[in-house]
Amino acid sequence: MAHFKPELLEQLIEVRGASGNEENIRDFILDYIEKNKKSWKSEVTIHSGEGFQDAIVLIFGKPKTAVFAHIDTIGFTTAYDFNLIKIGGPKTIDGMKLVGSDSQGEIETELMIIEDDEGHKSLKYVFDREIDRGTDLTFKPNFNLTEQYVQTPYLDNRLGVLNALTIAEDLENGAIVFSTYEEHGGGSVGFLGRFLYDKYNVHQALISDITWVTEGVQHGGGVAISMRDKAVPRKSFLNRIIAIAKENDIQFQLEVESAGGSDGSMLQDTDLPFDWCFIGAPEDNVHSPTEKVFLSDIEAMMELYGVLMKELN
Amino acid sequence: MAHFKPELLEQLIEVRGASGNEENIRDFILDYIEKNKKSWKSEVTIHSGEGFQDAIVLIFGKPKTAVFAHIDTIGFTTAYDFNLIKIGGPKTIDGMKLVGSDSQGEIETELMIIEDDEGHKSLKYVFDREIDRGTDLTFKPNFNLTEQYVQTPYLDNRLGVLNALTIAEDLENGAIVFSTYEEHGGGSVGFLGRFLYDKYNVHQALISDITWVTEGVQHGGGVAISMRDKAVPRKSFLNRIIAIAKENDIQFQLEVESAGGSDGSMLQDTDLPFDWCFIGAPEDNVHSPTEKVFLSDIEAMMELYGVLMKELN
Amino acid sequence: MAHFKPELLEQLIEVRGASGNEENIRDFILDYIEKNKKSWKSEVTIHSGEGFQDAIVLIFGKPKTAVFAHIDTIGFTTAYDFNLIKIGGPKTIDGMKLVGSDSQGEIETELMIIEDDEGHKSLKYVFDREIDRGTDLTFKPNFNLTEQYVQTPYLDNRLGVLNALTIAEDLENGAIVFSTYEEHGGGSVGFLGRFLYDKYNVHQALISDITWVTEGVQHGGGVAISMRDKAVPRKSFLNRIIAIAKENDIQFQLEVESAGGSDGSMLQDTDLPFDWCFIGAPEDNVHSPTEKVFLSDIEAMMELYGVLMKELN
Repeated sequence: MAHFKPELLEQLIEVRGASGNEENIRDFILDYIEKNKKSWKSEVTIHSGEGFQDAIVLIFGKPKTAVFAHIDTIGFTTAYDFNLIKIGGPKTIDGMKLVGSDSQGEIETELMIIEDDEGHKSLKYVFDREIDRGTDLTFKPNFNLTEQYVQTPYLDNRLGVLNALTIAEDLENGAIVFSTYEEHGGGSVGFLGRFLYDKYNVHQALISDITWVTEGVQHGGGVAISMRDKAVPRKSFLNRIIAIAKENDIQFQLEVESAGGSDGSMLQDTDLPFDWCFIGAPEDNVHSPTEKVFLSDIEAMMELYGVLMKELN
Repeated sequence: MAHFKPELLEQLIEVRGASGNEENIRDFILDYIEKNKKSWKSEVTIHSGEGFQDAIVLIFGKPKTAVFAHIDTIGFTTAYDFNLIKIGGPKTIDGMKLVGSDSQGEIETELMIIEDDEGHKSLKYVFDREIDRGTDLTFKPNFNLTEQYVQTPYLDNRLGVLNALTIAEDLENGAIVFSTYEEHGGGSVGFLGRFLYDKYNVHQALISDITWVTEGVQHGGGVAISMRDKAVPRKSFLNRIIAIAKENDIQFQLEVESAGGSDGSMLQDTDLPFDWCFIGAPEDNVHSPTEKVFLSDIEAMMELYGVLMKELN
Repeated sequence: MAHFKPELLEQLIEVRGASGNEENIRDFILDYIEKNKKSWKSEVTIHSGEGFQDAIVLIFGKPKTAVFAHIDTIGFTTAYDFNLIKIGGPKTIDGMKLVGSDSQGEIETELMIIEDDEGHKSLKYVFDREIDRGTDLTFKPNFNLTEQYVQTPYLDNRLGVLNALTIAEDLENGAIVFSTYEEHGGGSVGFLGRFLYDKYNVHQALISDITWVTEGVQHGGGVAISMRDKAVPRKSFLNRIIAIAKENDIQFQLEVESAGGSDGSMLQDTDLPFDWCFIGAPEDNVHSPTEKVFLSDIEAMMELYGVLMKELN
């Protein structure tokens, strides 16, 4: 049985990859797969490169269901006059540390929130020179592991990626998709879904991503199965997943939210008949540098994915 | 000539089917088709099941044009602590009756609107126990028929479905699509359109749905042909439809709105070159339990669809 | 080397074509191509008509990259009681001149902005009779050319169309797409991209459109290469384009914005792995009848497209 690998998680978090700029994290994952696939239970076929942008698809055996884990992160783009523009929806906290690199080298800077007389806020970076226009800045890694939880930027979605890489070890039949652009309007799930559907007739998806601690979903309560967010997954697929979780005595929590989206809602917007379900551990301090997830919820997440990928494939 | 069937309409309204949960209404329609198709003028090919989610496609002869009628309804999802989350955009009226079922059985409950000190409203259900998380609740059926009009929940879009089932009786060439998810962000029109386009080269669509009584579109004025809502259909297709309506002396009204969407706007968002036009009777009290449509407008709607499906196929 | 043709620009601006109603401008462009293609360097294959709505695709040699130029414009639809509804996002200025035609003939009218007691604005047209419902009105052409700049309605995007027609003269390999519906929610880029991808394996796009003069992008500063707007193009494709612009000593400016969209963001929303980049001259008085672009920026735009279509094909 596969387990949580904090070292690999820390490495994944070190690699930068804001939406639209996933080349490095793509290469890291491809390299990891090359080095580790010989120890995996089944043979894997790897699809990447031309026609896949910076995304990756792994195929094991005869797949019926795909795990989608997005490899991009939130961040900021540098604009004119020390301004910053958001990539996705990062929280902004005065003084938060950001890193990146441009034509002049490595950058470590801080975010500054400036409010004018009418209360309009603008985001600036504090640096002794102007950074090249269009440079990506991301949260500075800061990895904290205790016996109970892990706290660091980008658990969303390095943890979803870790989950996908972990279930790859034992997978006999199934697909794993490392998608891009999830945090910023989407853009890869369409062609990835199309590839899976046309080539393998796959039209079931599990969204390996991180959700929110809320009134109804709490730390230590197990992996969250989302019954809906802004989008509504198909009830019959949801019921099958919940039944499998129950039969296998996995600790889970049912989530019901009115807002939020994921690769699941993007799949629903495609011209493809995909059933999908978001399944992930809940985190606190969402989209901030101090995202926090309980280890027991990560274990439950991995356990549920292991079982589902057996029974749905 | 096919006519309005109030009994079938009442039966369609009795069957629950909030967006994402269209299995029962799908089965009802499939069952109706099985029982009635032998009396139809032409042979029908039925596509449903795997690859169609809970949608249905009917093919008659050599189709060039498809009628889209969505089979889902608006409603609510039960969340934590007696809260309700909207499915689509239902009107909310204190005390309105909602029905559903969960693991403990049938439910009849009432909506309560709670306003806090700052004016924020939350929606709750009034019940002697918590309903299972993620349970769908829909308006309690309440069917009223007079000589002039019909008034009941879910004329939108059981009436559009009835229209589609009615024109099926005489159809020689054409497609009929029973789509899902229309009320909540869409999700089936893409793959349904793709199926029609790839397999039958169909790329014209008539949206069989219900619109609003407004300043420019009134009860008893005939079926509304929408020249635009939020989306703008292609003018040349629109002009053809209006010309056919005129030539055939059908009572119609031209609608021009700035807001609203339908399976038509969803089709426009696909990767398919579909021309589409929304054509439907106007209703009052939209998205409430007292939706009201005049019978003469229903007859005009059926008449126009009958003529259009002849001339556009 | 191809150069700016003000006469052709003026002709393009005379032809009406609000989103959804691009038949006339489509016919004008097809006619222009027929008359001029024999003087072009390479042979062209023209795709239009059934399955293309009012869009056009030109194929030269073996294309790897497509230029997208939208042929629709912003405007207004006439509604009930002298009201106007926007098509796309036109600026509204009291007294601005609008033109169109309906069943009773040619129309020249003026926009009137009416504000009620609560500050709600409505848009009306001033005319001695009601115009047919659903009639399109567009800005009255008013072409002004100086030695430094051109100022007229609809530089966005008749200038992008002119650019595309101009680079066609020397193009050996590449695709040119005249798209529709860009100003109003999109709708043709999906099937056009699908056609290019399926039939020619094209998955790179340059968006030939007009952008905004801002703090960071100015008149006379050269063609703008957009590093992002609301959408974020793929960094690796962007970097290639910037490198080519530098190597060829073309005057360009880097744009970084938080808002705005184009055929590029529409392509990103498709189920296709398209890389795209928005490249266009900047204009002042965006979406008004007095759009203004500097001639040197138009020349830089044409020069950059010429170079890019060589090196990316």
